[in-house]
Amino acid sequence: MISKLVIKIRQLDAPIVVGLDPMLSYIPSKILKKAIDEKGESLEAAADAVLEYNKAIVDAIYDLVPAVKPQIAMYEQFGVPGLMAFTETVNYCKEKGLIVIGDIKRNDIGSSSAAYATAHIGKVKVGNSSFAPFDEDFCTVNPYLGSDGIKPFIDACNEFGKGIFVLVKTSNPSSGEFQDRVLQDEDSTLYEAVGFKVNEWASLSMDGKYSNVGAVVGATYPKMGEILRRIMPKSYILVPGYGAQGGTGRDLKPFFDKDGLGAIINSSRGIIAAYRNEKYAKYGEDGFADAARAAVLDMKQDILESVF
Amino acid sequence: MISKLVIKIRQLDAPIVVGLDPMLSYIPSKILKKAIDEKGESLEAAADAVLEYNKAIVDAIYDLVPAVKPQIAMYEQFGVPGLMAFTETVNYCKEKGLIVIGDIKRNDIGSSSAAYATAHIGKVKVGNSSFAPFDEDFCTVNPYLGSDGIKPFIDACNEFGKGIFVLVKTSNPSSGEFQDRVLQDEDSTLYEAVGFKVNEWASLSMDGKYSNVGAVVGATYPKMGEILRRIMPKSYILVPGYGAQGGTGRDLKPFFDKDGLGAIINSSRGIIAAYRNEKYAKYGEDGFADAARAAVLDMKQDILESVF
Repeated sequence: MISKLVIKIRQLDAPIVVGLDPMLSYIPSKILKKAIDEKGESLEAAADAVLEYNKAIVDAIYDLVPAVKPQIAMYEQFGVPGLMAFTETVNYCKEKGLIVIGDIKRNDIGSSSAAYATAHIGKVKVGNSSFAPFDEDFCTVNPYLGSDGIKPFIDACNEFGKGIFVLVKTSNPSSGEFQDRVLQDEDSTLYEAVGFKVNEWASLSMDGKYSNVGAVVGATYPKMGEILRRIMPKSYILVPGYGAQGGTGRDLKPFFDKDGLGAIINSSRGIIAAYRNEKYAKYGEDGFADAARAAVLDMKQDILESVF
Repeated sequence: MISKLVIKIRQLDAPIVVGLDPMLSYIPSKILKKAIDEKGESLEAAADAVLEYNKAIVDAIYDLVPAVKPQIAMYEQFGVPGLMAFTETVNYCKEKGLIVIGDIKRNDIGSSSAAYATAHIGKVKVGNSSFAPFDEDFCTVNPYLGSDGIKPFIDACNEFGKGIFVLVKTSNPSSGEFQDRVLQDEDSTLYEAVGFKVNEWASLSMDGKYSNVGAVVGATYPKMGEILRRIMPKSYILVPGYGAQGGTGRDLKPFFDKDGLGAIINSSRGIIAAYRNEKYAKYGEDGFADAARAAVLDMKQDILESVF
């Protein structure tokens, strides 16, 4: 699956993924009101509003970017109706030709991790029929439980032509509490130790120059990005934290290989809620999708100018 | 919420939680066949079979144990219909008076963790109405991202009277890959460092003698359990890994306080699929619920004899 993503990144000259992380507060009041008029104040109405908002944004940006990354937490907060909207969002994006990275950060002991892998990038058998329940192209996974929890995802990558991004150094302020701790035996940090493991896991699912096993490293930590780029040469790096979380274009260079590949930068709020940003205020609430398109174009220019 | 769990544990003299982790392979063929006859080979049929199986087990054990722990991965593998069965399982167990620990192992950066907390132990507003989407009593969370990812769950504990169990030392064979690494600055392991943090977090949501912030420590690592029992005196320890994963009664003593409180032991397969175990073979496939009841009674006896 990673080779498909690399081809799309090159075709569009856009190492960019748009995070579809809808908060109700981002959604224009007209859209939410219409949904509540139809379904009452309910989880179903919230889910309908999320889906309509997503579709308008996807329609406005699908020709500019290779991929989207729906954050499942934002759907799960609306219960089962929210997860139906997640599924419909995934399907809609795939129909539009977008690669979908499910930001699910799942992990567990082996048997449960296998069930998560089945749910998101695999297939489950019921009688003699097979189903791909959520059917993302990639998903994110948490490494805290070690190889047992990662291997079932790698098996699914190989069996179903999918990919994963393993959390290595996350973009949030407190990520250093555990991830930056220095380990006694090798004088490396925990995030480096996880990076070394990712590099081992990567060799289990190569797909061209890169592996289907990628890594998540926050744009907010560019020096660590430089170190991790060297530790994990086979892994694509998914880089969250650009824009709303504080990462800027010039922070991104260390995440890329010399040929300009090796990293894909995510922006969520900065794109989907661009209309709430002063810079794009002229679009107004009704112009949220056009504002999102303008923000993607600006992000692309910022990255190309700063990085290449 | 922890005080409610402690009261139930004392009333029943049973520091036991039954893991509702249904695999299709555990479900008697009659139940699955009936569901497929009704709904065809579909995710809906699988979800119906899971729910019927769960209900029969819950009916057989609800008077013996204080709590159940549905593993959401096993439901998520059947997509949205599976998550409907999860919700219905949670509701059914609560109607029967059981405390429900959602084994969800969620975590993310702050805003997304807040959405997960809302989904599982909080409430979401749509217009002027509030909804509790999954409404478990407790849930499990992953600590890899540090305090940012945990605080929203603690806030939800305080606002809605709920609880969490933070993964500290997991029961799986590879849990040591990262968790057992020794940190340079304090000569402690990562799991101990997480334990110290849990002890800090615990003080933010006290509920009687114990905190609503508990910890997960695998029965398969009793020596580490002893250390962690000391590091986290305010936290209840949820102990998976008994039975099918290899933990035995005599491994459990270190997890408990001197007064016999402080720990609750989980068994999943060992109870819900007991009928597949030679020891309970006499019950047969049709007697799976009675076999589960017998296995709970044996587990209770084993724990009381070994620990107290």
